[in-house]
Amino acid sequence: MTKEKYIVDTSLFVNPGSRKKFGKTPSSAVKAFVKKVNGRDVDIYMPPSVFKELKNFVTEKAIGELEIAIRKKAPNTYSIYLPAAVLYDFIDDVRARINKGMRLAEQFARDNRPDNEEKLRKLREKYREAMRSGIIDSKEDFELVLLAKELDATLVTSDEGVLKFADQVGCEWLPAGQFYNLLTKKKKR
Amino acid sequence: MTKEKYIVDTSLFVNPGSRKKFGKTPSSAVKAFVKKVNGRDVDIYMPPSVFKELKNFVTEKAIGELEIAIRKKAPNTYSIYLPAAVLYDFIDDVRARINKGMRLAEQFARDNRPDNEEKLRKLREKYREAMRSGIIDSKEDFELVLLAKELDATLVTSDEGVLKFADQVGCEWLPAGQFYNLLTKKKKR
Repeated sequence: MTKEKYIVDTSLFVNPGSRKKFGKTPSSAVKAFVKKVNGRDVDIYMPPSVFKELKNFVTEKAIGELEIAIRKKAPNTYSIYLPAAVLYDFIDDVRARINKGMRLAEQFARDNRPDNEEKLRKLREKYREAMRSGIIDSKEDFELVLLAKELDATLVTSDEGVLKFADQVGCEWLPAGQFYNLLTKKKKR
Repeated sequence: MTKEKYIVDTSLFVNPGSRKKFGKTPSSAVKAFVKKVNGRDVDIYMPPSVFKELKNFVTEKAIGELEIAIRKKAPNTYSIYLPAAVLYDFIDDVRARINKGMRLAEQFARDNRPDNEEKLRKLREKYREAMRSGIIDSKEDFELVLLAKELDATLVTSDEGVLKFADQVGCEWLPAGQFYNLLTKKKKR
């Protein structure tokens, strides 16, 4: 029997709700995760770009333990083909967001009240929400989905934009917050 | 012998530099274009979305003449596949532009000088340049390239973003400003 394959995202360790059952901090969650998968019949993958991103959140010791518990592999973006309709939808989504960003920028440019710090804080929050939430917005996110597709693996994430794109290309996925429970059910070797 | 196929963009008629040899206004350019292609061994295509866009710039009479001189056809976005690397690059480009748009918005939000009209004018100009120039930014642009690919046709445009995307997927293209000269060289039937 071939092992089941999972692609894990940083959100499994970084998002407090997702890591809850593994640990209180990203580092303790990584360590508990390594213990949990050890001896179980699963193959855990991370794209190198995502692994590198995780380094910003956890201790060197934890990342070292993780590196030998999982497999690192980038998707082959040059050999995978996607339906043009996926890019078509993406262009349309980006276009609408760019217009929304423009309206936000105008609104804040009109506001000449003196408290710039408070203004900038609100602007950043609203702009980020308008431009980046619910859309695949980084190469790392894209690599997660492509690797899952290439390996016919299950994607484990809690990122809305990643999940949306996974559905567009027909990738199997599991919410990151459920991964602890799924691993618990797997027999140890 | 099969006829040579060309996909034409609105820029051929709307961009003053591109239409120069056809006419002074979009409408006169369209009429001169219809005369020019008449009897020549070429097939001119426009995606319906692009044809519709052109309606905003030219008279009803001109658009009517054009409609029977060219062929309208949308690309089949559901059957065309693109290398994942194309979407990968696009996501990366959009990410960088979103950050640039954020910095622009911050800059104008900090400026509390009272002349809002002047501020908004500058903001719009800079934002548009940062977000939309040199990138494929609409479904219409995307359809041009896909149709050229599907029909193995030559794309005629002066839009930088469209040309960049055409190169990424290996589409043949001709600058819109050269199309008059190319047609002149073709024999009449």
